[in-house]
Amino acid sequence: MREAMASAEVGDDVFGEDPTVNELQKKCASLFGKEDALFVPTGTMGNLISVMTHCRERGLEAILGTKSHIFIHEQGGISQVAGVLASTIENNPDGTFDIDKIKERIRLTDDPHFPYTRLICLENTQNMCGGKVLPMSFMQDVYGLASELGLKVHLDGARLMNAATALNVPPSEILKYVDSASMCFSKGLACPVGSIIAGTKPFIKQAKRTRKLLGGGMRQAGVLAAAALYSIDNIIPRLHIDHQHAQMLAKGKS
Amino acid sequence: MREAMASAEVGDDVFGEDPTVNELQKKCASLFGKEDALFVPTGTMGNLISVMTHCRERGLEAILGTKSHIFIHEQGGISQVAGVLASTIENNPDGTFDIDKIKERIRLTDDPHFPYTRLICLENTQNMCGGKVLPMSFMQDVYGLASELGLKVHLDGARLMNAATALNVPPSEILKYVDSASMCFSKGLACPVGSIIAGTKPFIKQAKRTRKLLGGGMRQAGVLAAAALYSIDNIIPRLHIDHQHAQMLAKGKS
Amino acid sequence: MREAMASAEVGDDVFGEDPTVNELQKKCASLFGKEDALFVPTGTMGNLISVMTHCRERGLEAILGTKSHIFIHEQGGISQVAGVLASTIENNPDGTFDIDKIKERIRLTDDPHFPYTRLICLENTQNMCGGKVLPMSFMQDVYGLASELGLKVHLDGARLMNAATALNVPPSEILKYVDSASMCFSKGLACPVGSIIAGTKPFIKQAKRTRKLLGGGMRQAGVLAAAALYSIDNIIPRLHIDHQHAQMLAKGKS
Amino acid sequence: MREAMASAEVGDDVFGEDPTVNELQKKCASLFGKEDALFVPTGTMGNLISVMTHCRERGLEAILGTKSHIFIHEQGGISQVAGVLASTIENNPDGTFDIDKIKERIRLTDDPHFPYTRLICLENTQNMCGGKVLPMSFMQDVYGLASELGLKVHLDGARLMNAATALNVPPSEILKYVDSASMCFSKGLACPVGSIIAGTKPFIKQAKRTRKLLGGGMRQAGVLAAAALYSIDNIIPRLHIDHQHAQMLAKGKS
Repeated sequence: MREAMASAEVGDDVFGEDPTVNELQKKCASLFGKEDALFVPTGTMGNLISVMTHCRERGLEAILGTKSHIFIHEQGGISQVAGVLASTIENNPDGTFDIDKIKERIRLTDDPHFPYTRLICLENTQNMCGGKVLPMSFMQDVYGLASELGLKVHLDGARLMNAATALNVPPSEILKYVDSASMCFSKGLACPVGSIIAGTKPFIKQAKRTRKLLGGGMRQAGVLAAAALYSIDNIIPRLHIDHQHAQMLAKGKS
Repeated sequence: MREAMASAEVGDDVFGEDPTVNELQKKCASLFGKEDALFVPTGTMGNLISVMTHCRERGLEAILGTKSHIFIHEQGGISQVAGVLASTIENNPDGTFDIDKIKERIRLTDDPHFPYTRLICLENTQNMCGGKVLPMSFMQDVYGLASELGLKVHLDGARLMNAATALNVPPSEILKYVDSASMCFSKGLACPVGSIIAGTKPFIKQAKRTRKLLGGGMRQAGVLAAAALYSIDNIIPRLHIDHQHAQMLAKGKS
Repeated sequence: MREAMASAEVGDDVFGEDPTVNELQKKCASLFGKEDALFVPTGTMGNLISVMTHCRERGLEAILGTKSHIFIHEQGGISQVAGVLASTIENNPDGTFDIDKIKERIRLTDDPHFPYTRLICLENTQNMCGGKVLPMSFMQDVYGLASELGLKVHLDGARLMNAATALNVPPSEILKYVDSASMCFSKGLACPVGSIIAGTKPFIKQAKRTRKLLGGGMRQAGVLAAAALYSIDNIIPRLHIDHQHAQMLAKGKS
Repeated sequence: MREAMASAEVGDDVFGEDPTVNELQKKCASLFGKEDALFVPTGTMGNLISVMTHCRERGLEAILGTKSHIFIHEQGGISQVAGVLASTIENNPDGTFDIDKIKERIRLTDDPHFPYTRLICLENTQNMCGGKVLPMSFMQDVYGLASELGLKVHLDGARLMNAATALNVPPSEILKYVDSASMCFSKGLACPVGSIIAGTKPFIKQAKRTRKLLGGGMRQAGVLAAAALYSIDNIIPRLHIDHQHAQMLAKGKS
C-alpha cells in the first residue's frame, strides 16, 4: 500500500484534477451503485457533509438512533455546525428501530411550531450495538417509508464493507435502500486516512462545496486515494477472512 | 386589565428605562426567589434565550424530554439557532424521567468525540403529559445531580403558576431547584402578550443581550407589562378556582 | 392611541386569528404595494427574519453598507443567527454606494471557494448617514442590477414613512424597487411596540415560520396592532409637520 | 518526499499517538516560537479552526481585510460555520490597513446593539495584494493595539515561509506579533496535503476538539506529516532560490 501511495499520480483535487482521486471516486460510485462519489478526509466529515447537503435550508430535523455514531461520536456537529435538530429514537438491541416510532416522529405539516423532518440516518454495521448488521428488510422498510414521504436516507457505512461481507452481497445491494452513504478506508480497510461518500450527481456536486467550506478540500489527495484503491483491490476481497478470525476469537478458539 | 394597559407609565426598555417593565421584573424576581428577571415577548423566546445564555460556547448539549415543548414545539430552535445538540430522553407518563437515564447521558470528559453536557431542561407543568405537575422530589433529585456536576437546570414554566397552585406552594419553592425559568403571562394568566424569565443577575444581564439579538428588545413594553402586573394581582390569586372548575369539567359535573 | 389599544378586538395571532393584526397587515400590504405583510415585535427582528427568509440555504452572503443598522446595530445577527457572510461596502456620505462596487462584490459562480451572493440590503432613510433619504434613482439602479442577476433587495425601512414624506411619494413608490421591507411603528410613529415587514405571499408565509422560531409569534398582538393602525390614520398624515419642525430646529429657528 | 511518506511511522492521531505527526507538531511549535501546534488537512480548515477557537462564544466579530483569503476564499465559513460577523476593512495596496480604521471598528462596550470584537485576522504574505510581505512595523502595531485591548490576532500564514524568507528572519520573529497562525505545506512547500496551526497550549487543546468536530481528525496522518517534515528539512531552506527565480521571471530575465 505504501508503494502505491509513493508512486501515485496526483493533481489538484480542489479543481477535480487529481487522476488518482478521480479513479477512486469513479470506482466507488460503481461499487456502490450510485451516480457519483467524493473522497473526504474522515468518516465524521463524510457524515457531516451528507447531513449538511441533504439539509441545506433552515428549520429541518433528522431522525437517528440514540446509539448512532452521528449522535454520540461526532461532537454534535449535526446541530452545532449543521443546525439540524436531532430527533433520536432508541435503537433496538439489533441496531434497528421500530418503524412505528419513526412514523410518529415524522413532521411534514406547515405548523410553524415544528421543523420539517428531512432525513433519516441509519448505521450499518451498527457499531454501538455490538457491530450488528442491519437486516435488509429493515433497510427496505425505512427506505420505502422515506421515499413515499419525500424524505432522504443517509447511511453511516463506516463499516459498510463488513456488512456486505457478512450478508454476502455487493455493497450496491445494501445501498439500494439509501440516498447517500459514507464509508471509511481507515480502520478495518487498513488505509492511513480517508473516507468516501456517494450519492446522486447533484448531491455530490453540492457535497463538494460543503467539503471546501469545512476545510476538507485537499490538494494532491491522490497519495491517499492510492491507498484506498489498493485497499479495494487487496484488502476488501479478504474481509471474509477477518470475519472468520473475529468469530473464532469471539468463540474463544485460536 | 385593558385599563391598566391604557394608563401604563412607559419608557425605553432597551435602555432599561420603562418603569412598568422594571416593576414587573422586580416583582417576578421576588415571586420566583431569583436575583433578577427579564420580560420577553413569548415563552418560546424565553426558552431560546435561556438555552443560548446557559450554552454560550460551541460544542454543548442539553438533556430534555421527548415530550417537552422545547423539543417538540419550538421548531428546533435549540439546534437551529442555538447550535446545541438535543439529547432527548423519553418522558415517563407522569412527565418525569429516570435519574439513571440522565446519568447515562451526561458527558463531561475531554474526549473530542463528545460535546459537553451543559444543561438539563424540565417542564412544569408538563403539557404533553396531560399537564402533569412534576413531583417536588424529582425536581430536587435532578437539581442535586446537576449541581454536583456543574450542570445548569432550566425550567420551561409556561404554566408554573398552575403547578404552584396545584402543589399549594409559592413558585419560589419550585424554583429552588432550577437555575433559570420561563413563565407565560398569556394563555392561563389572561394577558395578551408576554413572558418572563428569571435567574441570577449575570444570567439576566447576558439574557438581555440575547433578547436584543433575537429582536425581542421592545421599546415601550410597559403597556404589556401592565397587563402582566394586573394578572399577578388579580388572576393568579384566583387560579385555584380555575383548577376546581377544570376538575369538575374533567369529572363531568357542572 | 391608548384608547384604541384598550378597545382592540383580539384573537390568537399564531393561528392568524387576531382580527386587528390581520387588518393591520392587510392595510400595510396595500400601503406598501406588496402582496402580504407580517407584524413583528421589533425592527431588528423584522430585518433578521427578512435576511433569514431570503437566505434560507447555507453558503450565502449579503451586500450591505458599513453604516447600516443591520451591520452596526443588530449584534451581528445576520452572521450569528442567520449564518450569512456580511459583504460590507462603505456608504457614501449620502447613504448610497457606488454601483460598481456592488458589481465587484457579486459572486454567482459555482467556484467552491465562494459563497453565493443572494441579497443586497439598503436602508432608507439611512440613519448613520445623518438620516439621509436615498435618491430614487439609486434604488432603481440597485434593483435593476439585482433583478437582472436574480438577487433580492431588502430595505431596512425603519423610517420609511419619513423617506416617503420627504420625497412626497406614497411608500409603495419607494418599495417598487425592493423585494421586501421592514418599517417601525415605534419611535417616529409613536407606537409603544411593533414593526411590520412586507413582501410576496411566499416570502411572508416563510417569514411567519421564522418569526415563530425566533420567539416573535405573539398571541393577542391586536392590542399592539391597534396602536399601529391608529398611527397610520393619525400620526403618519402629520409627519410632514414633524419634518418642518425638525428643519426649523436644524436651522436654529423656533 | 514520497520515500519519506512511504516509510513513515504512524499511529492514531485522534488519540495523539502518531509519532510522525507528533514530531512535526513539536518541530513547528519550535520553529514558530509557539507553545504547541496542530496538523490539519488544509489551510482553510486551519483558519476556520483558529477563528472558532478564538471565538468560542456567541456574539463576536472579527476584523479582517476585504482582500483576505478568509473573507474571499473560504465560502464565508467564518459566518456560515463559526457565526462570527466579518467586519472588513479595505486593504491598502501593500496589504496593510490603517490602524485608525481598526480602532474605529473595535467594539468592546456592553451595548446590546453591538457584538464584541474579539479577533483581528492578518495575512502574510497577502495573496490578493500581489503576494506582498507585510511590514514588520505594521504587525507590531496591530499586535500592540490588540494586546492592549485584550483582542487576539490570527495570522493566515499560508505563505509564512515565503514572508520569512523575503524578510530574512526566522518565522518565529514574525509570529511574535500574533496569537495564532496557520501555514500550508502544500503549494509552495511542495507537499501533497496538509497545514499546521500554532498557538498556546490551551488554544491548541481546544483547536484539536474543533478539528474533530469539522471532520479533520485523521487517523494515521503520519504519512502526510512525513512529507511536511521532509519539506521543512529540504524545501524551506531552498525557498530563497525560488524567490530569486520568481524575481528573475518578474523582471523578464531567464
